[in-house]
Amino acid sequence: MDELENRKTAASNWFSDAQASFIAAFERLEDEAGPLYQDMPPGRFERKAWKRGDGISDQGGGVMALMRGRVFEKVGVHFSEVRGEFSEEFRKQIPGAEDDPRFWACGVSLIAHTRNPHAPSAHMNTRMIVTTKLWFGGGGDLNPMLSRYRADDHADTRDFHAAMKAACDAYDPEWHPKYKKWCDEYFFLPHRGEPRGVGGIFYDRHNSGDWEKDFAFTQDVGKAFLAVYPTLVARRMNIPWTEEDRAEQLFRRGRYAEYNLLYDRGTTFGLKTGGNVEAILSSLPPLATWE
Amino acid sequence: MDELENRKTAASNWFSDAQASFIAAFERLEDEAGPLYQDMPPGRFERKAWKRGDGISDQGGGVMALMRGRVFEKVGVHFSEVRGEFSEEFRKQIPGAEDDPRFWACGVSLIAHTRNPHAPSAHMNTRMIVTTKLWFGGGGDLNPMLSRYRADDHADTRDFHAAMKAACDAYDPEWHPKYKKWCDEYFFLPHRGEPRGVGGIFYDRHNSGDWEKDFAFTQDVGKAFLAVYPTLVARRMNIPWTEEDRAEQLFRRGRYAEYNLLYDRGTTFGLKTGGNVEAILSSLPPLATWE
Repeated sequence: MDELENRKTAASNWFSDAQASFIAAFERLEDEAGPLYQDMPPGRFERKAWKRGDGISDQGGGVMALMRGRVFEKVGVHFSEVRGEFSEEFRKQIPGAEDDPRFWACGVSLIAHTRNPHAPSAHMNTRMIVTTKLWFGGGGDLNPMLSRYRADDHADTRDFHAAMKAACDAYDPEWHPKYKKWCDEYFFLPHRGEPRGVGGIFYDRHNSGDWEKDFAFTQDVGKAFLAVYPTLVARRMNIPWTEEDRAEQLFRRGRYAEYNLLYDRGTTFGLKTGGNVEAILSSLPPLATWE
Repeated sequence: MDELENRKTAASNWFSDAQASFIAAFERLEDEAGPLYQDMPPGRFERKAWKRGDGISDQGGGVMALMRGRVFEKVGVHFSEVRGEFSEEFRKQIPGAEDDPRFWACGVSLIAHTRNPHAPSAHMNTRMIVTTKLWFGGGGDLNPMLSRYRADDHADTRDFHAAMKAACDAYDPEWHPKYKKWCDEYFFLPHRGEPRGVGGIFYDRHNSGDWEKDFAFTQDVGKAFLAVYPTLVARRMNIPWTEEDRAEQLFRRGRYAEYNLLYDRGTTFGLKTGGNVEAILSSLPPLATWE
């Protein structure tokens, strides 16, 4: 039991540290933005602590951090560590919850909507879940806004996939093909017949049997995202954009909102299990259009 | 059997006529708009016929009509008459489809997003469904964009409810209280703890045992909406608005999109049963924000 508690503490500390690292990286880009942004001050994150549940039993909570900046029109980086019991509805769907509905879940999630249509939006999430079983889940995917950036052989797409691949390959050469495919299948809008973005990796119920290895992998996914995504934003954020680029970005964001509200399991699951509505729906774009 | 076919034909003719009446009323408002709109030409609907299914068997189809106008920033008025078989997934959920999955469904649906934040948005839908059973469904609800218009005792709200009440009361005094309550319950965002709009009526599986009466009621709901909604738009469309009003409208539209993608049964049902994606999702607002 002590070992499990130690692991929870180690994971929680990492997810909280990761939140701080992302916040620092994004605020740095706000400071470094060029003359396109001179009429706006550099953005800063606002942090808000929240508690889960009824306020009587301790069900944990989290720290939301949201920035409405100049490079990042809207970006959320949220840490949460929650515990409780799954409702009847979910017990059968969750590994290890059939007989004992108690759970502990901790993670960090990030959704960035850039202002410049040339700079990609992106999502990253890593988490550890404990029921009578234990596993990790997460991933990261890149969402370029302009169709000319959405090719498989675009430099940004290639660099993003290379970073995710390196994080996987350090542990198991089978993980990247598997998790890249899962990402392509998961972030897909069937009613539109189109992918949400250009992919990345997605994994769930990940337990190789070696906790140290899986935890190290989880950290490396976060570190890889932290290394590559701000680089891609810096590469594009100072390119002037046109009205047409902005219109295409807003259209693409409409599709992003469709995906999150119709299909994203984190969103629908979170709304049904008493998650923080404000944090969950902070993934929705600041401004979006539908034709 | 002849009687059933005659009823289908009568209903189909009515829904198609209703579509034409709504289109005419909305185009008239486009023409009558005042100097606030002088930089924009009056909008006109674009009609697009579509076929359901594989193109081999005749599964019906419809006529989408969409206008991006000056009074109506985006408004869709869609007629459809479709037939087919429910998939295994839906047979158990649909009255009369357990043993025989064939269905026929015909209706008209309307979603109007006004440009002026003072003018309410609104939704109306009436339909007739035939499986081994037969019923009507539909309703109309008003969605004022500004909080000062969202009071129960606001003139627009009162006029809208009075129109829906009159349509119901002509047939049965119990229908309006029942269908108004259903509307309040249905058009509600549980995760936000707030209603979508100020309500109206909502009904489904409506079959009083007297088809002539139910069909007349269906027509009267459409006529009542046609009488009251354009009047409310005309009352408000020439009031100048501020940047703050526009911001509140875009925020409210974000909530509207949330509702439709997370909860609206017509949307999720339509996307899962091979409906026309373009028509179904034309309900989404032209431009929306999330805080």
